[in-house]
Amino acid sequence: MSDTDPLVVFTPSGKRGHFPKGTPVLTAARQLGVDLDSVCGGRGICSKCQITPGYGEFAKHGVTVQPDALSEWNKVEARYDEKRGLKPGRRLGCQAQVMGDVVIDVPPESQVHRQVVRKAASARVIEMDPATRLYFVEVDEPDMHEPTGDLERLARALKDQWEIPQIRADLTLLTKLQPVLRKGKFQVTVALNKGHRDDVARVTEIWPGLHEGGLYGLAIDLGSTTVAAHLTDLETGEVKASSGIMNPQIRFGEDLMSRVSYAMMNPGGDREMTRAVRDAINTLAEEIAKEAEIDASLIVETVFVCNPVMHHLLLGIDPVELGQAPFALATSESLTLDAAALELSAINPRARVFVLPCIAGHVGADAAAVALSEEPGKSEDLALIVDVGTNAEILLGDKSRVLACSSPTGPAFEGAQISSGQRAAPGAIEAIRIDPETKEPRFRVIGCEKWSDEDGFWEETATTGITGICGSGIIEAVAELRIAGLMDESGLIGSAAQTGTERCVPEGRTNAYLIHDASAEGGPRITVTQGDIRAIQLAKSALYAGARLLMDERGVDKVDRVVLAGAFGAHISAKHAMVLGMIPDVPLEKVTSAGNAAGTGARIALCNVAARAEIEKTVRQITKVETAIEPKFQEHFVAANAIPHKTDPFPELAKVVSLPNPSFNTKGEDADGGGRRRRRRG
Amino acid sequence: MSDTDPLVVFTPSGKRGHFPKGTPVLTAARQLGVDLDSVCGGRGICSKCQITPGYGEFAKHGVTVQPDALSEWNKVEARYDEKRGLKPGRRLGCQAQVMGDVVIDVPPESQVHRQVVRKAASARVIEMDPATRLYFVEVDEPDMHEPTGDLERLARALKDQWEIPQIRADLTLLTKLQPVLRKGKFQVTVALNKGHRDDVARVTEIWPGLHEGGLYGLAIDLGSTTVAAHLTDLETGEVKASSGIMNPQIRFGEDLMSRVSYAMMNPGGDREMTRAVRDAINTLAEEIAKEAEIDASLIVETVFVCNPVMHHLLLGIDPVELGQAPFALATSESLTLDAAALELSAINPRARVFVLPCIAGHVGADAAAVALSEEPGKSEDLALIVDVGTNAEILLGDKSRVLACSSPTGPAFEGAQISSGQRAAPGAIEAIRIDPETKEPRFRVIGCEKWSDEDGFWEETATTGITGICGSGIIEAVAELRIAGLMDESGLIGSAAQTGTERCVPEGRTNAYLIHDASAEGGPRITVTQGDIRAIQLAKSALYAGARLLMDERGVDKVDRVVLAGAFGAHISAKHAMVLGMIPDVPLEKVTSAGNAAGTGARIALCNVAARAEIEKTVRQITKVETAIEPKFQEHFVAANAIPHKTDPFPELAKVVSLPNPSFNTKGEDADGGGRRRRRRG
Repeated sequence: MSDTDPLVVFTPSGKRGHFPKGTPVLTAARQLGVDLDSVCGGRGICSKCQITPGYGEFAKHGVTVQPDALSEWNKVEARYDEKRGLKPGRRLGCQAQVMGDVVIDVPPESQVHRQVVRKAASARVIEMDPATRLYFVEVDEPDMHEPTGDLERLARALKDQWEIPQIRADLTLLTKLQPVLRKGKFQVTVALNKGHRDDVARVTEIWPGLHEGGLYGLAIDLGSTTVAAHLTDLETGEVKASSGIMNPQIRFGEDLMSRVSYAMMNPGGDREMTRAVRDAINTLAEEIAKEAEIDASLIVETVFVCNPVMHHLLLGIDPVELGQAPFALATSESLTLDAAALELSAINPRARVFVLPCIAGHVGADAAAVALSEEPGKSEDLALIVDVGTNAEILLGDKSRVLACSSPTGPAFEGAQISSGQRAAPGAIEAIRIDPETKEPRFRVIGCEKWSDEDGFWEETATTGITGICGSGIIEAVAELRIAGLMDESGLIGSAAQTGTERCVPEGRTNAYLIHDASAEGGPRITVTQGDIRAIQLAKSALYAGARLLMDERGVDKVDRVVLAGAFGAHISAKHAMVLGMIPDVPLEKVTSAGNAAGTGARIALCNVAARAEIEKTVRQITKVETAIEPKFQEHFVAANAIPHKTDPFPELAKVVSLPNPSFNTKGEDADGGGRRRRRRG
Repeated sequence: MSDTDPLVVFTPSGKRGHFPKGTPVLTAARQLGVDLDSVCGGRGICSKCQITPGYGEFAKHGVTVQPDALSEWNKVEARYDEKRGLKPGRRLGCQAQVMGDVVIDVPPESQVHRQVVRKAASARVIEMDPATRLYFVEVDEPDMHEPTGDLERLARALKDQWEIPQIRADLTLLTKLQPVLRKGKFQVTVALNKGHRDDVARVTEIWPGLHEGGLYGLAIDLGSTTVAAHLTDLETGEVKASSGIMNPQIRFGEDLMSRVSYAMMNPGGDREMTRAVRDAINTLAEEIAKEAEIDASLIVETVFVCNPVMHHLLLGIDPVELGQAPFALATSESLTLDAAALELSAINPRARVFVLPCIAGHVGADAAAVALSEEPGKSEDLALIVDVGTNAEILLGDKSRVLACSSPTGPAFEGAQISSGQRAAPGAIEAIRIDPETKEPRFRVIGCEKWSDEDGFWEETATTGITGICGSGIIEAVAELRIAGLMDESGLIGSAAQTGTERCVPEGRTNAYLIHDASAEGGPRITVTQGDIRAIQLAKSALYAGARLLMDERGVDKVDRVVLAGAFGAHISAKHAMVLGMIPDVPLEKVTSAGNAAGTGARIALCNVAARAEIEKTVRQITKVETAIEPKFQEHFVAANAIPHKTDPFPELAKVVSLPNPSFNTKGEDADGGGRRRRRRG
């Protein structure tokens, strides 16, 4: 390059340099380190290097671009345009040559490290930098005078053409190498995977010629109840499909500890559960690939987030040690594995699997994923992040320090162990209000947008009926009972005589509140019983005590903001949660929902390989607090039993506060409707 | 250390240093880099660190050792001596403390890198430095306040106690980690494997407490006809058992090219052959472990040497490309694999497999193993190394340069395609002499030490009978026919009238020589036919032409010495080979046998991890010569057809020259008898 050579300015990067006439734009971009994609290595066949030259005056860059600043369209571009169409103004960067000073814009879709912006403003942007990428290469044909193997010549081609210093291929790849090379006339596309701890790239797949079928990854949130997967395009970061499936381990026990018990009581029980969940993941992978209309063998990466028991059972490790103090994990660090090691036969046989690290014996890779997504360690103010589920994972922290614990809330928040409780499904009461004057309830059920006192509600719910109360419904019901003065601070429901309403009915030696009675028509009679109140009190006390324990450790008695994470967290009314004393009081606008933050963390680790190293480092720095051995946890637990607010702390909010749900489902499915059923089951 | 502290001198290394009183001998050895073994890390339980202190005057070292130069026997040593017995004069290096100037001898069995001396003086010494070693560690128990996983605490223990910077464990190891740690009360022995290309050690196995069951490896010579395995103690280098099994691929074709054809003509045929050989290897591993009375799961390493077609079929790669020019290998470099990738289920599931590199499409890992064993690249004189089998692998070289080729000799040298030919087995004629005067033959058969004209021969062979001629027998027969003047230079057998012996009988339009006729008793009639002579001429011409081609490339017309390798090579009479013109003429004492050099190469790579890098480098430096494309090969082949020597070139040698056979079977089995049968089938 010399100053008398034409000046090339790239936007948006602003990188610039002088290049001799005839230099292809792609070459100039590479020399300047401009982020311009190319799979075929400049052969004019992949079209990834499309650029848009600008013409005329560019005062900002001090350049005037003449119409002949780039070489004329050549045959390769003309053929490409004819066959597939090139957008107006676009050129192929590998074909267009610099002939004069020029300003060249690299559109987002031509950038390798393009950014994927998630919907919610609060959430982090994902920079695409996956562990697996495609490379098109021309391999030397075999030569008897220089008898190297085909693999060695492929390695040399990748070194010469892509500066890949070294590759590794497993036997299953070697078995197909020779026919594919010959089918492609020694021009092939390879998918190379290089994890954050690898110094050698692995050949995950090889295709004859230029592979244009894409490359995909699965981000899997493996919950005790549901396995949720998000099929992600590893080139664009786009979610092509999301799907969920029941965790079939449920037949061995509803909650984690009952599954650990099953493993302890039944020889080989852990292997049964491992088999079951791996089968389910294969089924899910097949379904999601079918839904997205792609070949499942194009799935070359998978990231898992899960709690420690699910983690061990996925890996085939007996979780017995997690059922008893000191709750020793077999391994706490992240794992990078072959899909074959997990018997994931539905996806590419050479796919790589990344499992996020666990934080502690009770605080799993799902909590680590929340930390990756929500980044408490980068927060200016003190954030309390609660991932609500059967166990609550709790993170508290800011830039200076992050603490984590897990609290055994039990399944009450999910509608289990509640007399009229049910899982979130059409027909379930998900929101409820009790008029403080009349003490009469009105409610909303899943599957219908209307409240029960609105016109058309009964017609619209005729099919599903009113079947029970789900998690968010029971939380609201208990809070509303308190606000309406039907229940005292200790959680005791008053009698009809005490409260002046026939809705308070005797139930054994205590009272219950009747929400809906269809028993005359053979339907359900839905009440909130004293037992239900106790179950919710236990659950919310555990959650609150966990949060308080972290606050004690941190030496604070309030937090600046609260983030409710978890699929279920997205549906909790912040107001009612605070009435109940589930979470410490903060201004209502300081309560946000992170949606399925664990799933988002999984997707971040899938799309950005550096995030894997980041979360490993983060997890090491987190202060782990074990609730089971802290005497203060019991104190807080007991102290938190009461339901503090006897009046609505936010009377100005007439309607239920429905938090925005920045689910990372980019297909735009809303939180309501059919999608909810799956996502609620975390 | 200060000069006023006691002086410690170690022998045989001569390393010396001053150490404060009370320093354990093991500690002093480690600080000085003295090669003193220890598996338990100085806890007085493994007894690997036994040393012998010397007392009195050591003028050579300038030291006088007082009786109290070491601390008195302690309880640990006394207990050890009581339980297992300590040789007189021995101490445990981890228990005995330096109290005064002392000279300490490290006996060979206490040295980590002890040397294994093979029987033959010409062969290299193997320094024990296997990829897998045992380490005893005490692991921290889990602690809720610092919730790392068990694997991470094991890693930390290995780092702290053994300076192992990093470990890796696969899922199958993780599944057993927790119960084993607890069974051993957090004291465990691990087998760590670190291949020559690895920067992280893998945990191959873990045992509770101190593991004293040993650690084993298999060196496998995978031939077209036989699979031979040598079970080697990875701590001592001792061969515990050797065994062979037929290669079951024989049912798909006797020679390599017919197996390649089978794969080409039958879809899935390559997979059938892969399945067959892997099954055979598993059977062999089970048998050999049983023979040595060890648990097969203690076999943690396996090294394979084989020709390129066997190599590809072992790996599950269709060998079709090896059947046609340009004979492209799928991969030529060495491979380090999991045993599971080769479905070697009989041995430890986490065993590692090393496959030597191939030199070229026709010159395999077996030839590389010969190069590793015979080291032509370190030879002062020009050595021709011939590995005789169905294909002959030929190496020519010295310090300055090594060349290699393969020559298609066909199976005649192994007794196949010979009218009375048979494999080497009891009853087969293996040596023969024809009296130049009487033209009468006398011979020896496998299974009997006597010649047929010696007393007792017929009684001793009554059971087996005289069944046919094996490879070495036919070579001698053809050479003797020439020496006895019964055959001309072109290889034509004379008639009875021409030769004056009734042993020359008409057979079609040519003549045959009758060696033995038991047809009257219903037994075989053993002759050497004109067709047999032609088959041997073709084979020997191919072998000679290959050697000549390398000599041409090297620009020489003679070599300084000839090494006959291969199990079969060990039985060829050098004199007769030269009469026949199989090998270039050299003084008879310059012909040596390397025995099963390929198998020895496999064992070197098994016992010494650095040898793996060495052979990779060597193979890259070898000049590959492809016989199939060199016109000169055909010229040499045609020119070598004649049988040059019409008289015995070594008349002084009255009896057959039986070359010493430095087989690496250290159990001392001789070449003759039952052992021969296995080893001959290469």
